[in-house]
Amino acid sequence: MNNKIVYTPGPTNVRENVRLARGMKTTNPDVDNDFVEFYKKTCEKIGDIIGTQNDVYILSGEGILGLEAACATLTESGDRVLVIDNGIFGRGFEDFVSMYGGEAILFSEDYTKDIDIESLETFLENDSDFKYATIVHCDTPTGVLNDLSKICPLLKKYNILTVVDSVAAMVGEKLEVDKWQVDIALGGSQKAISAPAGLTIVSISEDAQLAFKNRKTKVTGFYCNLGIWENYYQDKWFPYTMPISDIMGLNRAIDNIIEEGIENAINRHKRIATATRNAFVDYGLELFLENGYSSTVTAVKIPESIGALNLIKYAYDVYNTVLSTSLGEYSNSILRVGHMGENARVKDLVGILNTIDMSMVNLGFNRDKSLVDLFNKYYSLYCKEDVENEHYNRIQFQV
Amino acid sequence: MNNKIVYTPGPTNVRENVRLARGMKTTNPDVDNDFVEFYKKTCEKIGDIIGTQNDVYILSGEGILGLEAACATLTESGDRVLVIDNGIFGRGFEDFVSMYGGEAILFSEDYTKDIDIESLETFLENDSDFKYATIVHCDTPTGVLNDLSKICPLLKKYNILTVVDSVAAMVGEKLEVDKWQVDIALGGSQKAISAPAGLTIVSISEDAQLAFKNRKTKVTGFYCNLGIWENYYQDKWFPYTMPISDIMGLNRAIDNIIEEGIENAINRHKRIATATRNAFVDYGLELFLENGYSSTVTAVKIPESIGALNLIKYAYDVYNTVLSTSLGEYSNSILRVGHMGENARVKDLVGILNTIDMSMVNLGFNRDKSLVDLFNKYYSLYCKEDVENEHYNRIQFQV
Amino acid sequence: MNNKIVYTPGPTNVRENVRLARGMKTTNPDVDNDFVEFYKKTCEKIGDIIGTQNDVYILSGEGILGLEAACATLTESGDRVLVIDNGIFGRGFEDFVSMYGGEAILFSEDYTKDIDIESLETFLENDSDFKYATIVHCDTPTGVLNDLSKICPLLKKYNILTVVDSVAAMVGEKLEVDKWQVDIALGGSQKAISAPAGLTIVSISEDAQLAFKNRKTKVTGFYCNLGIWENYYQDKWFPYTMPISDIMGLNRAIDNIIEEGIENAINRHKRIATATRNAFVDYGLELFLENGYSSTVTAVKIPESIGALNLIKYAYDVYNTVLSTSLGEYSNSILRVGHMGENARVKDLVGILNTIDMSMVNLGFNRDKSLVDLFNKYYSLYCKEDVENEHYNRIQFQV
Amino acid sequence: MNNKIVYTPGPTNVRENVRLARGMKTTNPDVDNDFVEFYKKTCEKIGDIIGTQNDVYILSGEGILGLEAACATLTESGDRVLVIDNGIFGRGFEDFVSMYGGEAILFSEDYTKDIDIESLETFLENDSDFKYATIVHCDTPTGVLNDLSKICPLLKKYNILTVVDSVAAMVGEKLEVDKWQVDIALGGSQKAISAPAGLTIVSISEDAQLAFKNRKTKVTGFYCNLGIWENYYQDKWFPYTMPISDIMGLNRAIDNIIEEGIENAINRHKRIATATRNAFVDYGLELFLENGYSSTVTAVKIPESIGALNLIKYAYDVYNTVLSTSLGEYSNSILRVGHMGENARVKDLVGILNTIDMSMVNLGFNRDKSLVDLFNKYYSLYCKEDVENEHYNRIQFQV
Repeated sequence: MNNKIVYTPGPTNVRENVRLARGMKTTNPDVDNDFVEFYKKTCEKIGDIIGTQNDVYILSGEGILGLEAACATLTESGDRVLVIDNGIFGRGFEDFVSMYGGEAILFSEDYTKDIDIESLETFLENDSDFKYATIVHCDTPTGVLNDLSKICPLLKKYNILTVVDSVAAMVGEKLEVDKWQVDIALGGSQKAISAPAGLTIVSISEDAQLAFKNRKTKVTGFYCNLGIWENYYQDKWFPYTMPISDIMGLNRAIDNIIEEGIENAINRHKRIATATRNAFVDYGLELFLENGYSSTVTAVKIPESIGALNLIKYAYDVYNTVLSTSLGEYSNSILRVGHMGENARVKDLVGILNTIDMSMVNLGFNRDKSLVDLFNKYYSLYCKEDVENEHYNRIQFQV
Repeated sequence: MNNKIVYTPGPTNVRENVRLARGMKTTNPDVDNDFVEFYKKTCEKIGDIIGTQNDVYILSGEGILGLEAACATLTESGDRVLVIDNGIFGRGFEDFVSMYGGEAILFSEDYTKDIDIESLETFLENDSDFKYATIVHCDTPTGVLNDLSKICPLLKKYNILTVVDSVAAMVGEKLEVDKWQVDIALGGSQKAISAPAGLTIVSISEDAQLAFKNRKTKVTGFYCNLGIWENYYQDKWFPYTMPISDIMGLNRAIDNIIEEGIENAINRHKRIATATRNAFVDYGLELFLENGYSSTVTAVKIPESIGALNLIKYAYDVYNTVLSTSLGEYSNSILRVGHMGENARVKDLVGILNTIDMSMVNLGFNRDKSLVDLFNKYYSLYCKEDVENEHYNRIQFQV
Repeated sequence: MNNKIVYTPGPTNVRENVRLARGMKTTNPDVDNDFVEFYKKTCEKIGDIIGTQNDVYILSGEGILGLEAACATLTESGDRVLVIDNGIFGRGFEDFVSMYGGEAILFSEDYTKDIDIESLETFLENDSDFKYATIVHCDTPTGVLNDLSKICPLLKKYNILTVVDSVAAMVGEKLEVDKWQVDIALGGSQKAISAPAGLTIVSISEDAQLAFKNRKTKVTGFYCNLGIWENYYQDKWFPYTMPISDIMGLNRAIDNIIEEGIENAINRHKRIATATRNAFVDYGLELFLENGYSSTVTAVKIPESIGALNLIKYAYDVYNTVLSTSLGEYSNSILRVGHMGENARVKDLVGILNTIDMSMVNLGFNRDKSLVDLFNKYYSLYCKEDVENEHYNRIQFQV
Repeated sequence: MNNKIVYTPGPTNVRENVRLARGMKTTNPDVDNDFVEFYKKTCEKIGDIIGTQNDVYILSGEGILGLEAACATLTESGDRVLVIDNGIFGRGFEDFVSMYGGEAILFSEDYTKDIDIESLETFLENDSDFKYATIVHCDTPTGVLNDLSKICPLLKKYNILTVVDSVAAMVGEKLEVDKWQVDIALGGSQKAISAPAGLTIVSISEDAQLAFKNRKTKVTGFYCNLGIWENYYQDKWFPYTMPISDIMGLNRAIDNIIEEGIENAINRHKRIATATRNAFVDYGLELFLENGYSSTVTAVKIPESIGALNLIKYAYDVYNTVLSTSLGEYSNSILRVGHMGENARVKDLVGILNTIDMSMVNLGFNRDKSLVDLFNKYYSLYCKEDVENEHYNRIQFQV
């Protein structure tokens, strides 16, 4: 099952030292206080990387757990919630809000663009009576990146708490939780962090903690209640047995990022993403987005005559390579190239671009230049100075 | 943090082949149908081991997720639920029931004994209007084992669905889901199955599925909704990204059990548990339980003059060994020896009994014979025929 | 130290399952007969792959150990030995022969061609009084492949034993030990077999065994004496403690080849090598060889204006990639591309060709088409039918 | 094959971090200078542990390679060599000496005692014309430990070079190469160092290097020639491809010892060995040795009525445990308990002593007290102060 080349917008490739950290003997996380310290330190390292002094927690469950937990813990019956929607996952928050009794009000915009700040401002001038708002940082199905640095402070001005799904952006795009006043920031282990799926990351501001405490009714549910984590450190007691082996892997993945430097990691994503996008355009394909390009994923339209599903089937059959298209209505029109985390390495990307190119050509696509040639051209433009910077190059081309 | 000897009633020791299976490269579980088949096969193997043709699912989250999910999915506002309570976790179901709007009616019995069937029968003759009942198979804090083979069919007679928490028993004690008419059976990866914490196992009967469908209201919550799994195989689509690496480890752990033979595994637990209990009694300590001994954990009273917490602190400080006491009111009076899963190996247990013995003696306990001597005596009695059975011995003493 | 992209003519990349097999607990190879069986089975599997019923042994030491051991065990003072020399390693045998008291007679030919059979035949008509002859299958520094299917039977006709260094060819090129009447065939773990360095493989014909026994003097040395292995299986006793962990890795690597099919593996090498060579020629570089191309390594001349050492330094500094030039006088004129074993995967090779191309261009080389484009062109020509053959494609593009 | 409990005097148990270090991707050791530095550092760390500034090398081959290499490199035809013989391996040097043309003169003593210094002195007063002498530090088949701190300086006084086989003692017993004037000290990876078999450790004094250079004839052989290593660092060139994966494991094993502290490690061995010996005596068995007990292995006589081979067969069949007897004439009379390296942990030893005890009893041995009880008694006596020393205890009981 596993001897395939996999290159998708998450789960991403996992580095060997993360995999091996997952395979080591452990202490008992319920009983041994050394684990409590280890857990706390891992959370604090994540906090550093995403720019926050807020409490950070790692939950045992896939990223979606965090999205639901934020809504479950904040929402009381009748609460009005602003759901900012310019993508499939953005709109998806509506379900979580209403599931827990809230009233979801959509602020919907064109899916091919990032959220327009002025337009949001205008909206808020009319209606700002929201307990909280949900925003997706990078909406993976289309790759659109929203500018949290403007959106969150704007909402804060209106005393609206912000719940940010940064699962597909965290660590691949800049995230400054405290500076941008993000109340609840959510991440997953399996995207740009490049650990396997199964862990959720949550940071919670004091304002959000206060909102939890000021609830008039109890939260429905325990596993999705973010309030249960507050005293784990003082009490040396976790709400449930923590998945220590998974967290050891996550901790190693975080250390990999710290060793690289978060700035370097983000730049690495940016260069690779920019070169990839430009290469696709010159190659003769259209990007799905008009603006708001995330450095973590590129969504490219595949001509109907070929079909995105057909393309990835061909790559799978002939090149043993697992790619992915988009979701829902876009599933046969968009190819997604997930250059995030450990995928964001030139060596791997070049192989994938070559596979895409060969597949396209074999399926009848006419092009002048190969995708690899075009990528090389743009990557070199952006990386001229790298030739001088041995350390930086090493990072770009690490195994 | 991790270079300690750990011997607790879960998480248990994880065999090397499970650890390494967790550390391997994987395909993408969202996109690759090979994973769907692998997942299904793993679930079916678990079904075989616990004697059921029911649908089995593996959820991404610690065992408690399953407990909550069963209650969340079954309970509607005002539903009457029978909470069978002869242990800390047994009673704990009350919270999940009421959290989701149910009315929990406790059937409470002495915590030092297993549930008395006649007494339950008498109770039901008076009041049997329950949508479902919750029962703990083995209640780990005290190690009491309830006889599901009688309890569940009895409840079925009254048309009461059964939700069984077998987290601390599954694979270490016999579990015959179909024969015993268990509607929802719940397990965790980190107990007798001996994979790391982080996965929940759920089997769901047709009666339970029907109950899900006959709800008049929607389930509050998605992550804890068991209804979302029903069509994953037909649709080749999971409700969230599955933790494939964790499941690869679980699958390997299940294969270990299958290679041993589930009967052999259960016998191994029984022999070790019986010898351990007898040894403790002869040693001069009192068992917490009067009957209903589970083969997975033994709860022993520690004299006040020593104190259970003091005992495990001593073992930790002097022997680098992590043991555990019980929970709540029992935390300083009960030592728990967790001989389940990979812990249930004579070689490891002997070392631990020696550590407990040395610690007790150094803390002032007077005894005639050492725990190891006593264990040997009883273990040999039960294993006389094993000397003739090379294959079986190998299993007992496997690494 | 290890986070580099490495692509050299050995040690080659090691597949994950081989690496993990090296990292597992083991039994004691001195005492446990199960190991004797395992060792024998591994040796027999190797025998199958290289087409022999001869005894096969795995020695604890790098490949050169086998070369020396063959000479040490066969040579007595004054023995005349034919050293067939059309490469650096070919000539190197002279030292081993004379070290152990033999008289080495060189049959030297042009290093840019494989051994000409007619020319060898003419030579032997004049002088064939040799105890044995040494031949290198693939001489790695230049990549020349000698046609053993003709050379060895020819020597046999003259009753000359053959010692074949197939370290850099075994498993990447066809080797039919019995059919071709090879008396001693030598391999190493770290080339096309793709296990780490540290193990030597030796197969010994009956004729060679007889020559060992007919010695008038004792072999000087124990570690290099091939005679000490003869009775290990009957005696269940190895001459020294066997490196069981290394052999477990080797065994897994051999199983990988068996699962692929030795024919498939050899074809995979041939396709990749052919496309690589043709690509380099069209790219504007000259191959070192005129004929006798091995499928395991390609030697390409690098223009003086650039310099092979300068080229690999650039790839190292800028692309974090470890390549290698040749040895001795060729060290600055030849770049060697080691497409053998696990390196012989299109995905990895494409990345490397791109790195070579980018480096060449950045160092001032003018070319029309990129190496990757040219490789794709030739690889497709040779692989047209593969599109139809899903299984075969999977092999080519395996991880 | 590998799921057994193994407890022999080498290969010893390998710690998880060593196993995993062996399973990681590596750079190319032939080409990458980072490896040269890594190799040198590893050698220097070993030098620190065995108290020497001499050059230290790691060779690719089992420990016996070092023994032969020392003799091969020092011996010229007719050289007189003193072979100090109070054990099977001690006498074994005779073969290596004569194989390479030397004249071996045996200084043979009672195998049940360590070398008597005065007796050796008397011998040397009569005859001291030796190029070098061979001494075994700990002769594993019987466990006798020779006092190098007296033997080597004494030989030095007579200008006799010393070749010391410390394979079974190094790191488990004190070794002060420089202080004791050991010219060539030899070790193996698989004994107290607790890495897998396959690597040889050699330290070479300046006097020995000089002897190499002053040879009148060439060394016969390359693989066993210690002279080939001299310039590897200046030349950044190894005589053959180094087994980098094995060396990564060795390096990790050395780091484990450094983290523990070499003094702590040696004390750990001493306490365990002393308690084991005393326990066996009280148990009613006779030690093979009268004095000269090594801390790395204990040789115990097994009554004829039981038989050592029968005993270990029983432990294998019934307890799935691999033990070992001695070699040659002692093979059925001596049981060897190999408490060295990672085997020298109380937890593992207790399990093994219990297995030996149970096997002895089941085979008809009468005893008053169990081996574990006796071990506990003596171990406690020697470790009373440890209870106060948490750090030290952690080491004793590490996993």
